Amino acid sequence: MTPQEPGLDPVQEPAAANLDATQAEPAPDSSVITRRGLLASGAAVAGAALLGTWPNIIQAQANQAPAPAQGVAGSAGTGTSPGRPIGAPTSAISARSNFEQPARTPTGQVTGSSFTPLQEFTGSITPTDLHFERHHSGVPTIDPAEYRLLVHGLVERPTMLTLADLKRLPSVTRIHFLECAGNGRTAYRAPKRDLTPQLVDGQTSNAEWTGVLLSTVLAEAGAKAGVTWLLAEGGDAALLSRSIPIEKAMDDALLVYAQNGEALRPAAGYPVRLLLPGWEGNTNVKWIRRLELISQPNMSRDETSKYTDPLPNGTARQFSFVMDVKSLITSPAHPVRLNRNEWVQISGLAWSGRGKIARVDVSTDGGKTWTAAALQDTVLPKAHTRFTHMWRWTGEPAVLMSRATDETGATQPTLAAFRAKRGQGTDYHFNHIRGWAVERDGLVVYQVDA
Amino acid sequence: MTPQEPGLDPVQEPAAANLDATQAEPAPDSSVITRRGLLASGAAVAGAALLGTWPNIIQAQANQAPAPAQGVAGSAGTGTSPGRPIGAPTSAISARSNFEQPARTPTGQVTGSSFTPLQEFTGSITPTDLHFERHHSGVPTIDPAEYRLLVHGLVERPTMLTLADLKRLPSVTRIHFLECAGNGRTAYRAPKRDLTPQLVDGQTSNAEWTGVLLSTVLAEAGAKAGVTWLLAEGGDAALLSRSIPIEKAMDDALLVYAQNGEALRPAAGYPVRLLLPGWEGNTNVKWIRRLELISQPNMSRDETSKYTDPLPNGTARQFSFVMDVKSLITSPAHPVRLNRNEWVQISGLAWSGRGKIARVDVSTDGGKTWTAAALQDTVLPKAHTRFTHMWRWTGEPAVLMSRATDETGATQPTLAAFRAKRGQGTDYHFNHIRGWAVERDGLVVYQVDA
Repeated sequence: MTPQEPGLDPVQEPAAANLDATQAEPAPDSSVITRRGLLASGAAVAGAALLGTWPNIIQAQANQAPAPAQGVAGSAGTGTSPGRPIGAPTSAISARSNFEQPARTPTGQVTGSSFTPLQEFTGSITPTDLHFERHHSGVPTIDPAEYRLLVHGLVERPTMLTLADLKRLPSVTRIHFLECAGNGRTAYRAPKRDLTPQLVDGQTSNAEWTGVLLSTVLAEAGAKAGVTWLLAEGGDAALLSRSIPIEKAMDDALLVYAQNGEALRPAAGYPVRLLLPGWEGNTNVKWIRRLELISQPNMSRDETSKYTDPLPNGTARQFSFVMDVKSLITSPAHPVRLNRNEWVQISGLAWSGRGKIARVDVSTDGGKTWTAAALQDTVLPKAHTRFTHMWRWTGEPAVLMSRATDETGATQPTLAAFRAKRGQGTDYHFNHIRGWAVERDGLVVYQVDA
Repeated sequence: MTPQEPGLDPVQEPAAANLDATQAEPAPDSSVITRRGLLASGAAVAGAALLGTWPNIIQAQANQAPAPAQGVAGSAGTGTSPGRPIGAPTSAISARSNFEQPARTPTGQVTGSSFTPLQEFTGSITPTDLHFERHHSGVPTIDPAEYRLLVHGLVERPTMLTLADLKRLPSVTRIHFLECAGNGRTAYRAPKRDLTPQLVDGQTSNAEWTGVLLSTVLAEAGAKAGVTWLLAEGGDAALLSRSIPIEKAMDDALLVYAQNGEALRPAAGYPVRLLLPGWEGNTNVKWIRRLELISQPNMSRDETSKYTDPLPNGTARQFSFVMDVKSLITSPAHPVRLNRNEWVQISGLAWSGRGKIARVDVSTDGGKTWTAAALQDTVLPKAHTRFTHMWRWTGEPAVLMSRATDETGATQPTLAAFRAKRGQGTDYHFNHIRGWAVERDGLVVYQVDA
C-alpha cells in the first residue's frame, strides 16, 4: 500500500482544525494529558466517589493475567501480520459467537411460558429472538396479505383495516418493557437457592416498538356515546381477549407491527399486536384481530378465572393492570462464584409501569443499609433501566438487594410487607425486593427469605 | 374453564379504583367517549394538523378491502374456537416469519461491506444480525477466555486487561449510530434509478451499546505528559489501526462488549470493540487488542492511503472523523409503486455525529418547499432518529426529499453545493440531500440529480 497517494496533503486539515468542528461537544482541558489530569478527569466521568474506594482494580487483575496467546507489537507499526489468518467473510445474517449461546427455557410449551435469560445480558434492550413468551394456545401462522383488523361495536363507522392500512397511518417509535403479570411467581411461592435471574424474573423483556397510536385508529372509527371499555381479541386458537378501559386506549396504547426495528416475529404477535405500555403482558393482545368498543367490561376468561389476584380476606383484585415498580440484580447472581477481595460490578434492571425509574438503591447487607446505584444515561418511561454499583466482597457472608423507586414515588416493598398484604396464595404482581446471598465460599444463591 | 373461581370477587377492586393508581399519567377527559371527543383527542395525539388534510384515510382503504379469510365474531364472545388450529410451541430462540426475510447484501466479502436493508425497517434500532459490516481481512474467531487488551505507551502503568476485568468496571448503556465513512459513495459517484435505500445508505446502523468508558481504563493506566493521541489496533489479520485524539478518548469513547443487550457478535468485534460515538465507522476498531498512548498521530495505512477526502484543489481532508448531519427517506423508496390519490406515510432516518437531531424537513416538490416532519418520541444524541410525514400523491410527478438539521445548527447541503465544495472525486462523508422521484405510473426511483 502507498502511504501517501497523489493529491493527499495530510497537513491541509490537521487534527486541530477537524476538532474545531466538534466544538459543540464538551472537550476536557488539555491538562488531561498528564497522568494526574487523566485520573481526575476519568474519575469525573465515571463517578468521583469511586476513586477513593476502588483503586487500581485493573492492576490487581493484570498482575494475575497470563501472557497473551499472541505477542503484541511494541511499536506503533501497522500492516498485515503474515502469521494471522484471514477471517470469515460477510454474510446475509450474522450469527452469534459459538462462545455465546443464550437461550430461553423451558421450551416446547403450547400453553405456557419461555423465560428470557436475563443473566446473559448487560444492556437494557432484550434481543428480539430471546424476548419472553407466554402463549395460550400456541403461535398461529398469519399471512400478512390476509391479515385484517376489525374495529366495531359502539362506533360511527365500523372499520376493517389491512396491514398496509396500518402502515400508512402516522407511526411512533418508543422503547417499553413488557412483563407477564405472573412474573416472579416461582420465586415467591416456591423459592430455592438455585434459582437464576432467568427463573426468578425471566418473564420481563424490553424492546423498541413501532406502530400506530390506538387513538389514531379510534378517531377514524368514531366512538359513540357510552363507550367506556374496549374488547381486544387475538387471532390465536384461544381467541384470547381482554377488556381495556377506554382511557388507556386513548392515552399511550399502540398497535405495533415492529420490534427492535424489524417486523414482529410470529411469537411476538406477527403481524400486529396491541401494546399497552406498563400494563400486564396478557393485556398486550398478540395477533390482534378485533377491537370492539363496549360500555362495560366483557368479563372474559382471562380477566375472571385468570389474571385476578387472590387476597388473604378471600376477595381478589381484578383489572389490576399496571405493573408495579420493580428491580432485579442480574449480576452477580446464581450460579456465579465470587473471589475474595475482588471488586465486582453489581448490575441489574429496574422498571415501572407508572413511568420513569427515579432511583435504585443497592444493599449488600440484606437491607440494613442502602446506597444509590448509577442509572444508565437516558432513563425512559415504562422501560427497563440498567443500574450499576461497584462493590468489593471481603469474604464475609453478604446479601445483595436492589430497591427501585419510580417517578410517582412508589417503591418496592420488602418480602414481609408484600406477604402480609397480599398473602402467600396471591397469583400476580410480585414486586417485592429480591435478594442474592453470597456464601462463605463465594457462591451466590437466591435468598429464599429475602 | 371455570369463569369464576372461589374467592374471586370481581367488584372488590373495580376498574375505577385501579385506574386511580395510574393517576400519574395524563388521562383524557371523559368526553373522549363521544365521537366528537374521540376525533378531537385522537387528532391531538397524532398531530392536529393532520385532520384537515387527511380525513378518513382508513375508510377509503376499508371500502376496498376484501372480506377477511376467516369470519369474525360479531359479539363479544370469548373462549376457544374449535375450528382454529393450535399454534406452534415456544422455542429456545424465536425465528422470523417466513413472510419477512430481511438480508444484507452483498455477502461473501472478506475485505468489503455488506449493507443493511434499511427499507425493511420501521423503527430506529437496527436488528443486531443485520447491522452493516465492513471488514478489512475478515472476521477473526477470538476465544473470550484468551482475549487480552494491552494499554501501553506513554502511561505510568502498562496494563493488560482480560474480558472479565472489563466487565468488572463500571459500565454504561447508550444508543448510538455507526456509519461507514464511505456510506453513500455509490449514490454519489454512480447514481442509478434502481438504487434502494439499502444500496444508497445501507452502511449506517443503530444499536444500544454497553461497555466501559475509555476514560475509566485510561485513568487506571495513567497517561504521562505529552500524550495527545491514542493508537487503537484491532485483532483482525490486518491489525487495522487508527490514531484517535486523546480528547475524544476522554470524552465519550467506549470499550463495548454488548450490542442490543447481548454479547457482541463476531462480525461486530467480539468480544470487545472501540466505539467512538458519531465518528466514522473505521475508527470504531473491532476486536480491539491494543491501545498505545502516543504524542503524534501514527499515520497508519487507514488514515493515509484510505479514509482521507480528496478535494478539488488537489489537497485532501485528513482525520475528518465526525459523521456529518444526514437523513434518508426509507419509505416510500425504490422499488415501491404508489397508488394515485393514496395517502402514504413518508418515513425515514436522520442522524448526526455532533449531537441530537433538531429537526427534519421534508419536501415533495424536489426542494422548492419544505415542511417539518414529526420526530420519534425520544431523540437521543448521535443516534438514528425516525421521522415521519403524511402525504397524498395526486398522480403528478413528485420528488421526495428530506433535510436534517442537528442541535449545532448544521444542516444537509444540496447535492450541487456538496459537489462544488468537495468535487466529484471525493471518497467519504457524503451527506448531501437525497431524493426519490415518483414517476407518472407511481414507480419510485432514486433521483439521480437530486
